[in-house]
Amino acid sequence: MKFLDIRDNSFEDAFAAILARSEETGRDVEQIVVDIIAEVRSRGDAAVLDYTRRFDRLEADSVHSLEVTEVEFNEAFARVADEDIAALKLAVERVARFHQKQKQETWLSTDEPDIMLGQMVTPLQRVGIYVPGGKASYPSSVIMNAVPAKVAGVGEVIMVAPTPGGEINPHVLVAARLSGVDRVFRIGGAQAVAALAYGTATIPKVAKITGPGNIYVATAKKLVFGQVGIDMIAGPSEILVINDGSGNPAHIAADLLSQAEHDELASSILITTDRAFGERVAEEVELQLGQLSRESIARKSWETYGAVIVSGSLPEAIDFSNRIAPEHLELAVTDPFAILPQIRNAGAIFLGHFTPEAAGDYLAGPNHTLPTGGTARFFSPLSLDDFVKKSSIVYFSEGGLNRLGRSIVHIAQLEGLEAHAKSVSKRLK
Amino acid sequence: MKFLDIRDNSFEDAFAAILARSEETGRDVEQIVVDIIAEVRSRGDAAVLDYTRRFDRLEADSVHSLEVTEVEFNEAFARVADEDIAALKLAVERVARFHQKQKQETWLSTDEPDIMLGQMVTPLQRVGIYVPGGKASYPSSVIMNAVPAKVAGVGEVIMVAPTPGGEINPHVLVAARLSGVDRVFRIGGAQAVAALAYGTATIPKVAKITGPGNIYVATAKKLVFGQVGIDMIAGPSEILVINDGSGNPAHIAADLLSQAEHDELASSILITTDRAFGERVAEEVELQLGQLSRESIARKSWETYGAVIVSGSLPEAIDFSNRIAPEHLELAVTDPFAILPQIRNAGAIFLGHFTPEAAGDYLAGPNHTLPTGGTARFFSPLSLDDFVKKSSIVYFSEGGLNRLGRSIVHIAQLEGLEAHAKSVSKRLK
Repeated sequence: MKFLDIRDNSFEDAFAAILARSEETGRDVEQIVVDIIAEVRSRGDAAVLDYTRRFDRLEADSVHSLEVTEVEFNEAFARVADEDIAALKLAVERVARFHQKQKQETWLSTDEPDIMLGQMVTPLQRVGIYVPGGKASYPSSVIMNAVPAKVAGVGEVIMVAPTPGGEINPHVLVAARLSGVDRVFRIGGAQAVAALAYGTATIPKVAKITGPGNIYVATAKKLVFGQVGIDMIAGPSEILVINDGSGNPAHIAADLLSQAEHDELASSILITTDRAFGERVAEEVELQLGQLSRESIARKSWETYGAVIVSGSLPEAIDFSNRIAPEHLELAVTDPFAILPQIRNAGAIFLGHFTPEAAGDYLAGPNHTLPTGGTARFFSPLSLDDFVKKSSIVYFSEGGLNRLGRSIVHIAQLEGLEAHAKSVSKRLK
Repeated sequence: MKFLDIRDNSFEDAFAAILARSEETGRDVEQIVVDIIAEVRSRGDAAVLDYTRRFDRLEADSVHSLEVTEVEFNEAFARVADEDIAALKLAVERVARFHQKQKQETWLSTDEPDIMLGQMVTPLQRVGIYVPGGKASYPSSVIMNAVPAKVAGVGEVIMVAPTPGGEINPHVLVAARLSGVDRVFRIGGAQAVAALAYGTATIPKVAKITGPGNIYVATAKKLVFGQVGIDMIAGPSEILVINDGSGNPAHIAADLLSQAEHDELASSILITTDRAFGERVAEEVELQLGQLSRESIARKSWETYGAVIVSGSLPEAIDFSNRIAPEHLELAVTDPFAILPQIRNAGAIFLGHFTPEAAGDYLAGPNHTLPTGGTARFFSPLSLDDFVKKSSIVYFSEGGLNRLGRSIVHIAQLEGLEAHAKSVSKRLK
């Protein structure tokens, strides 16, 4: 952990080391993924089976046999405690309610008597959701991807999840069913992404693929972008807490650690106007680290990418935040709403002393898929927008075309596009 | 041109040849672009100057000297006819008015007394707009990219345009000024994309890059995606006209040719329920082709990627359209609004017999940057959405956290994320 003062001359250099944590995709990873995609495109199901055998140690006669059956769903529900099902149901309900508020309506303008213009909103017809296998197989991840798709009106949601050795997390299956996922296939890796993007005899081709994954999955998503839509390319997670000396240092330490336990590459930063408060938080982090089951991950993250920064003022802390565009931003200050409109770049903003970031991870309602690594400068949280697309609507009556036609012809001609001009002039009186 | 009947057994095979027109990026192009990006990242302005010398035959001492000056803007206005300026102004006004209607507001829910959730909409702080050089340097392209950015509230719009030999199209400069572009640099190619994505001493780093370009530009945009945002990756243009036998064959022929004149790879397709009407359109296309200045391009496009398709019914034609997801879709039928809600996938929809696609290219109002090659299944037209991003807002009062905290802790525990659970439980009463 670095204890820094933003006003020091050495600050920029010291902080640069914390920012430099994104993994660049090696050209070797890319070549492997290029080959996998080419194989799946040309050999379809057979290639998917080969890679599943090789990477997931899972033998299957057909991709069809890798689809999760109704019996398996029922078994999963039987294995999961009622209390767990209730908590997941609450999450599904709250996430659905929030995303319903993101709905955009089709509109048509009628302010000109002879021309109508508009925008039609339609759901994607079929989407694929990637769910990582093994320990990173989280039911919350299923909910955060599937629920917005279903609320948007997507016709069919296909989930893929690798099951190394055949084992599938029952909570993930329960979450899939509660979220309205239509079909689940036990496949993963770049081969699953390729199958969804291009379709095989068994896996239907989708319009968009969302969801987190390892470097092979992320690379495959980047490579099929354009063939299908993808969600943002997420990197390691991060949190920034802005503090004014108010609040409980133990709470803020716990929030920093909730980020650090995710991943050794995760980054947890506190920026506070109160040096003494910052010191107490740092002490609390050390105390709480020793009590965590994931201590070694959290400690590595905190030591390498953790920081407590002292700033001269709240505006200075806010400027810093806007510059790094954090994925998660906590406004742990006395009056968080007063500074909300000064925040320009952030994935999700958690206001006040009783809104730990973890609340947003599960069931507050907003999506937990957020832009990382400074990409909140241009990316948005996963939302209903990701599962719809728009079409422009243009209607000219004969009168409308006569009113504007000469100007259209004029611009077409100055661009040297004669056939464009003629398509209008032929219709003019 | 192929004259096909959708009900023939051979239809799918015959039509597949028309769809197969997208250029895959060669690995050699990609390697060249990877190298250019690496050079610009490490050597900044010096690399930009080297490539500009090499590719644009333009010598300059500094990137600063490649910025268009106020004097040059004034010269451009002096060289452009008043009538042209008036037409471009009309386009800017109408495009601005349409895009204002796409504005989304920040919202905050107050339906729970102890929890507030919301979504904050903020403009991107700085964007880059790529404008191709030479003959493809169109003022309408400047308007369609810059106006939505400015309407969205983007702080600074940086335009780049290669000027082979130093010549810049005065209409493009006029359009840039009328659209509110802040700065214009005479640079292009992959080097301009890299400079905007990473910043150099002179070119400011942007949050997003939009605008059309050649294969090097498109490849560079794809490679910097994630470092910055980009708009969709556009391929060759296309139009589909759905017809029910009503209307004037000469008008529809002109519309098909307005697409064909763009590019030898452009595709123009008519699907009609009336075989005789289709035959008349095909004859008209032949007649009108001979009268075009861009005849050779339009003829090549029409011969290779043009088609007249006869369908058994209007619903069959609509199904076909939804399957290919055309960039431009004309509903050249008697009652176009009656079938509008059946359209699922299209970039822009032009309704009725007096709405030639060219109307949408310049000044109807909607954007002319549209998803091509079937990507309207998941991409939307360029819009205000491209120039803003969203942040989720989460506020829990102490009462709110006490109400939901146990469920949050429950899910965190079942996912094995203990520090997440503790960040909540420490705050509970």
